[in-house]
Amino acid sequence: MSVHNIVSLTSDFGAQDPFAGIMKGVILGINPSTKIVDITHSIEAHNLLQCYYILKSSYLYFPYGTVHCAVVDPGVGTERRPLAVSCDGHYFVGPDNGILSFAFHKKSIIIELTESRFFLPQKGYTFHGRDIFAPVSAELAKGTPIEKMGKPIHDPVRISTPEPILSAERIMGEVIYIDRFGNLTTNISLSMLEEFVGKDSFSKMIFEMEGNKGRFTENYESGEPDKPGALINSWENMEIFLNQGRAEKTLGVSVGDPVTVIRN
Amino acid sequence: MSVHNIVSLTSDFGAQDPFAGIMKGVILGINPSTKIVDITHSIEAHNLLQCYYILKSSYLYFPYGTVHCAVVDPGVGTERRPLAVSCDGHYFVGPDNGILSFAFHKKSIIIELTESRFFLPQKGYTFHGRDIFAPVSAELAKGTPIEKMGKPIHDPVRISTPEPILSAERIMGEVIYIDRFGNLTTNISLSMLEEFVGKDSFSKMIFEMEGNKGRFTENYESGEPDKPGALINSWENMEIFLNQGRAEKTLGVSVGDPVTVIRN
Amino acid sequence: MSVHNIVSLTSDFGAQDPFAGIMKGVILGINPSTKIVDITHSIEAHNLLQCYYILKSSYLYFPYGTVHCAVVDPGVGTERRPLAVSCDGHYFVGPDNGILSFAFHKKSIIIELTESRFFLPQKGYTFHGRDIFAPVSAELAKGTPIEKMGKPIHDPVRISTPEPILSAERIMGEVIYIDRFGNLTTNISLSMLEEFVGKDSFSKMIFEMEGNKGRFTENYESGEPDKPGALINSWENMEIFLNQGRAEKTLGVSVGDPVTVIRN
Repeated sequence: MSVHNIVSLTSDFGAQDPFAGIMKGVILGINPSTKIVDITHSIEAHNLLQCYYILKSSYLYFPYGTVHCAVVDPGVGTERRPLAVSCDGHYFVGPDNGILSFAFHKKSIIIELTESRFFLPQKGYTFHGRDIFAPVSAELAKGTPIEKMGKPIHDPVRISTPEPILSAERIMGEVIYIDRFGNLTTNISLSMLEEFVGKDSFSKMIFEMEGNKGRFTENYESGEPDKPGALINSWENMEIFLNQGRAEKTLGVSVGDPVTVIRN
Repeated sequence: MSVHNIVSLTSDFGAQDPFAGIMKGVILGINPSTKIVDITHSIEAHNLLQCYYILKSSYLYFPYGTVHCAVVDPGVGTERRPLAVSCDGHYFVGPDNGILSFAFHKKSIIIELTESRFFLPQKGYTFHGRDIFAPVSAELAKGTPIEKMGKPIHDPVRISTPEPILSAERIMGEVIYIDRFGNLTTNISLSMLEEFVGKDSFSKMIFEMEGNKGRFTENYESGEPDKPGALINSWENMEIFLNQGRAEKTLGVSVGDPVTVIRN
Repeated sequence: MSVHNIVSLTSDFGAQDPFAGIMKGVILGINPSTKIVDITHSIEAHNLLQCYYILKSSYLYFPYGTVHCAVVDPGVGTERRPLAVSCDGHYFVGPDNGILSFAFHKKSIIIELTESRFFLPQKGYTFHGRDIFAPVSAELAKGTPIEKMGKPIHDPVRISTPEPILSAERIMGEVIYIDRFGNLTTNISLSMLEEFVGKDSFSKMIFEMEGNKGRFTENYESGEPDKPGALINSWENMEIFLNQGRAEKTLGVSVGDPVTVIRN
């Protein structure tokens, strides 16, 4: 038994279908004392990059030994490999399509799941979450060593993420995630902003987005009415918001739209 | 205490209202070590047949002894009976309106819940999920014998399900469920298809739907671009899909629309 | 360890974002045996009054000792205080913006959370659910005395709720909550109706709403077809409904719209 016996689930299954519930039934059948926690099942259908960002920003808040099972899997049933990964004291289970690639460090162990004795007897080819990823997650949470699950690989699929560009005059970034409140998470990190203007000097810069300019504040309520502001959010990234409004809607912004930070 | 002490919940309560959370509070008050698993709370309001299909296709993936509590209950507070059912090593609790009728086998025990000492003191007549089904589920998960909950009945309400028609020339079926990805589950089972063309001979047949013809494949990515395909899905039923698209939208199909399988 | 070690969660985080899952990871890291129950995460963004009503109507169905953590928090990161409250054998944790004010009784203990050794090391100022409320809830569920979490206060923010007006001729109330089925919960309680016409005499009164008149029934199916009816719902409040329809849509009603009860 691993220390905590926790499995987290992240998927694009949505709220209506019983797929996540079925995975939980499978896990409890193998490992009845597992604690199962939903991160979200509302990833946009087949949106690999959204899954990558959400799991990357969430897993470190779980205890060491947690098994994070992620299923956004448009290639289910094809030759794409099923994986289990050990990284930083956490485990990850899911398809080899890039959603786990934040966990591919030098010291990570990456296993292609080939030991079918740990799988459910397969019916059809469309639900590896139920037939492969759930039972393997339950076994890992039980303490079965990851090496027993298959063979190590060194060429996993890596996802391509948009990276910001830092120059002497500006940072050019983009929106990577929009949350329930319409706040816009960008790919510009706290550390890059500090590199640009120096620590504790955020009043020395402004941002531009869709023709709007705005300032940095510490919290949402410090934003000027009807004007977009920026702050460091819970991912430690720059986020653009509208105090008590929806920046997404008011600015008409989507994931991928550009933002620039300059000195003022 | 039953072996696993698990209660699954299925309802049409939706995500916003606190009804499912309240049922969980009631269950934990009676049986603090119960593991509670949501199958879904997003059944369409009052859609009995959808609840029937979802629970029927999910329960077998849970361990023996699991108590499956289902609440889609437009007749709450009327003379319709509250039930508990024992079938195939699983328990089911819910209203007598057909949503549990997949579990009415010859060897099933079907109990009308009449022993109000197992209920919560009732306030109003609109929330039997809280006042009857949750506490009875908690008792069953604890190991209280089902026979103590009331009296056996033999005339439970059975739901009417659309059945496919198999003839020498064709199978005529219909769409019974549409999932989050827009995939169309039909009522045509794997075994009926095998009866029609023989095992491992799926290349010998095609399907017709809304003027489109399509072939059978093993997985989603093997579908031809922009053309609907069919495969055997995780329910072991024939499912019509569009590779990386939404068959529901592109074909303009709803639950109940017909599909025909013929030899090619 | 408190008797049951249960934490309930209520928030406006929605289904897509990982915020609720992250809070659960934090709780399990501090207190691995906690049972965590979602009441809802689909409070309308920043709707303090909706959060107040939902938690007020739900908490009593949980066992004594449950810690109810509520996060609807537009003022996160400002001077608004974080609170923990002990009331009626239950605990509550959340921001001092009124969402917990149903729990501010004479005998309640209200603590401003000042002991940062119980918090997570803070990153940014936008997610007190993760950094303050989740870890404090985990500590309370473990049995750490509430008094250790900070200092007692006596001036918490109280929310303003619309109250019905009872006169000799009528009760004037309003809609305070609309559920998934389009049913309209009003602020008129069972006890006020009994005061108005006497117990078990509900046939002696009718209601008026948006030009419609309707009668009181015991359950939904007793409502006349196509005519709105009223009953006592699971909150023990008067609720207006349409038998197998959506009163919200048919009557065109929103939260805050008036309803009048008169004798017939």
